[in-house]
Amino acid sequence: MADIVKQLDYIFKPRSVAVIGASDNVTKWGYLVIERPLRTGYKGAIYPVNPQADTILGLPSYRSVKDIPGSVDLAVITTQASHVPSVMQQCVDKGVKGAILISAGFAEASIEGKDLEEKVMAIARSGGIRCVGPNCMGIWSAAGQLNNAFLTSPKNGEIAFISQSGTFGGYMAELASAKGYGLRMFVSIGNQGDLNVADYIEYLSYDDETKAIILYMEGVKDGRRFFNVCREALKKKPIILYKGGSSPAGSRAVMSHTAAIAGSEIVFQNVCRQLGLIRAEESFQTFEMAIALLGQPLPPGRRFAILGTGGQSVASIDACQRLGLEVPELDRRTSERLMAMLPPHAPMPKNPVDFAGSYRTAVDEANVVEILLQQDYIDGVISNVPINPAAWGHKVENASASALLAEIAAGVEKGTKQFCQLPRKYNKPIVCVRWSSEVKKDTVAEKLTEAGIPVYETPEQCARAMYALTVYAELKRANRGV
Amino acid sequence: MADIVKQLDYIFKPRSVAVIGASDNVTKWGYLVIERPLRTGYKGAIYPVNPQADTILGLPSYRSVKDIPGSVDLAVITTQASHVPSVMQQCVDKGVKGAILISAGFAEASIEGKDLEEKVMAIARSGGIRCVGPNCMGIWSAAGQLNNAFLTSPKNGEIAFISQSGTFGGYMAELASAKGYGLRMFVSIGNQGDLNVADYIEYLSYDDETKAIILYMEGVKDGRRFFNVCREALKKKPIILYKGGSSPAGSRAVMSHTAAIAGSEIVFQNVCRQLGLIRAEESFQTFEMAIALLGQPLPPGRRFAILGTGGQSVASIDACQRLGLEVPELDRRTSERLMAMLPPHAPMPKNPVDFAGSYRTAVDEANVVEILLQQDYIDGVISNVPINPAAWGHKVENASASALLAEIAAGVEKGTKQFCQLPRKYNKPIVCVRWSSEVKKDTVAEKLTEAGIPVYETPEQCARAMYALTVYAELKRANRGV
Repeated sequence: MADIVKQLDYIFKPRSVAVIGASDNVTKWGYLVIERPLRTGYKGAIYPVNPQADTILGLPSYRSVKDIPGSVDLAVITTQASHVPSVMQQCVDKGVKGAILISAGFAEASIEGKDLEEKVMAIARSGGIRCVGPNCMGIWSAAGQLNNAFLTSPKNGEIAFISQSGTFGGYMAELASAKGYGLRMFVSIGNQGDLNVADYIEYLSYDDETKAIILYMEGVKDGRRFFNVCREALKKKPIILYKGGSSPAGSRAVMSHTAAIAGSEIVFQNVCRQLGLIRAEESFQTFEMAIALLGQPLPPGRRFAILGTGGQSVASIDACQRLGLEVPELDRRTSERLMAMLPPHAPMPKNPVDFAGSYRTAVDEANVVEILLQQDYIDGVISNVPINPAAWGHKVENASASALLAEIAAGVEKGTKQFCQLPRKYNKPIVCVRWSSEVKKDTVAEKLTEAGIPVYETPEQCARAMYALTVYAELKRANRGV
Repeated sequence: MADIVKQLDYIFKPRSVAVIGASDNVTKWGYLVIERPLRTGYKGAIYPVNPQADTILGLPSYRSVKDIPGSVDLAVITTQASHVPSVMQQCVDKGVKGAILISAGFAEASIEGKDLEEKVMAIARSGGIRCVGPNCMGIWSAAGQLNNAFLTSPKNGEIAFISQSGTFGGYMAELASAKGYGLRMFVSIGNQGDLNVADYIEYLSYDDETKAIILYMEGVKDGRRFFNVCREALKKKPIILYKGGSSPAGSRAVMSHTAAIAGSEIVFQNVCRQLGLIRAEESFQTFEMAIALLGQPLPPGRRFAILGTGGQSVASIDACQRLGLEVPELDRRTSERLMAMLPPHAPMPKNPVDFAGSYRTAVDEANVVEILLQQDYIDGVISNVPINPAAWGHKVENASASALLAEIAAGVEKGTKQFCQLPRKYNKPIVCVRWSSEVKKDTVAEKLTEAGIPVYETPEQCARAMYALTVYAELKRANRGV
């Protein structure tokens, strides 16, 4: 096992956690980092450390980490910066294995803070303690069921999120959870006094449960190592990057935030292209792209078919073209095969395939997608009308209408099942926009999502998802020398 | 009253509606356009017309529109294209005032269809009937409480949405409703055989309840009239445009969709700039921008203060700079005043103002925003942490914690109230991103939204909202000769 795995497992899968600076004051981090793991099901031991308290949140409190009877894998430190050196020395004496330094007031604050940070790190190194932070906002680890970030209800999943901003990272992780996206790990990396972005990426590259890595970065400290670690990790899983500070004023804001120098935008662009990193233009697009990478096969090329009617198709094709994706014309034979499945007034199928806004049986729709995926010049399908639930939700009184509804429902069930199997059957991706009348309660979308087919709100999100799949597919082919 | 108002009121505020091609078949438009208005509370008379039925959805059915006993303001026509000329003649004979032609198979389908369309329009003109469509997907009118589009549950509001795509327009309207955005009107304009985009804009310019107009357009038929009507309407309310077909392939897709020629992208860009139309890069950004325009004062300039910690501020400032918005440095005195309200370890306040991720009282936060709005070089505030509900949602057992929570809650209530009043007090806009721990159930966001302060999911959406306000403010100033 790689050293980094052994070391970081103490942080992300600790058997016991000491909270130094523990507090019953609900406005303090020392409260939060006990309350959250208790609430979200951490199974190991939690030891509050606070010389002024007997119990905290109902748990016995210790005067010092050294007074804790059992062994301590991880220390979470929330005390004032000036106390951290002595606290860290106690951790070394105790034989603590890893630390998360929530405390702020280090390199990000002043020259003196920088000196203090170096002092703390030297003490930690002397005891072999690896450190997250300082000036960070904790972690969520599905492997350890440990939540000492301020996430209210993280959902277990396959996305790992490494964030150079604590608040913003935490917010995005929370938003992702609210949208049902599962997280394998979230780490607020703070000042990177010890562990840096590259270390976390390396660690995650060995974690088979991590299927995609998202980075929020403002700058790189050791560019060469970052490059090399990314190159190795990318052989195993995709990495999606959103970089803050890409504008001149943003770059100044970065400097006062994490003491990082925002790298030149041009350099970053080149690094992304050379490495095959997927770059998101906006912050939350990272997660939207990641869910496609979790559930869908990689496209063999960048030529896609679009399904939908009218404006959706237009918006889709505009978005695809902006991202350099191709939407090839269909051959005559395929057009004719599709025509047999479209309503009589639909125009001759081109790409995008236009359903003419009309009712279709769900099975026909699945068949249309299947025929498209069978073509060797089509590398995946963007569907703006995944499975048309048509009359669902209509209330009708008479029997014949009920019979019709039952037939529609049966068709939708059959069509959805067929649709869900298509990506694996043809080893090509499908991404979807939800269908109109189902925005609020979308049973079809639920089934597609369960099957790993991402369902978005807009055609532009779909196009970006396909772009992310394409970028990673091209890297994989380049690595194989194809 | 302008003619257009009188004419279109028959369509958008009809006292009675005849549905020609009415059906009990749940898969037909002839069913939908009766079921939806019944379900969503249309108060006028609905007359199904179908020679083969005695009743439809429990309502007496008529053999012809001419057999209807009362007067008919609006005819909704869903019959086959070939039958529409005779149906329209019957409408003329009956004295119908307006028509919505759902039926497809006209100019969008073929040369013969184009001839048929012209024939139908000539008949309508002979009887003074104004027509929506053909090849359209109906309307939603809050004024008439009439829903014969396929919207499941439109919400009354102040946004009017004119869409050249029926399905996509309907989808976006549905998505907007699901997000709680209210609609004054939705119209799927179809082939614009009679009424065109300019007519609807002109009509809406007279409707005081319409506070913002959204256009989904693929091309313009009469550019000069469009330009002139927009210029006049823009004196009263903002118009936000998303144009489909901006890429070469998208432009081809447009042609097969609504028989419209997608105008040159460059021409469109110039028209938008000259007119002061707000252009959205992506489809649903139109609605996100519109809600800011509904509730917020227009900024006196394009210089904004950003509030938040770390990464949010960085993403905000990057997004602002991409959109040409300015984020000026704070003067020394203001910085010092703000510093008194920030936590001790926060860095000297610059712009963005960094809260250093720390707990603050909500009242202090409102004060920070207030001080920023008092500066004459700050035209509005983007807040990434509107009101920090801090410890909300934490479960604590002991009394002192309860007291603390009560104090926090009281502070949040007071701070929120103050915050909500600031835009009117200083006549400058505030837009917000929701606060992390409140993504799912956000009581603060609810109050801000009620007060007209838009609350978004991402900093980028915030920046776009400020951009939209800025573009419209600059047009208003230009119109006043400022």
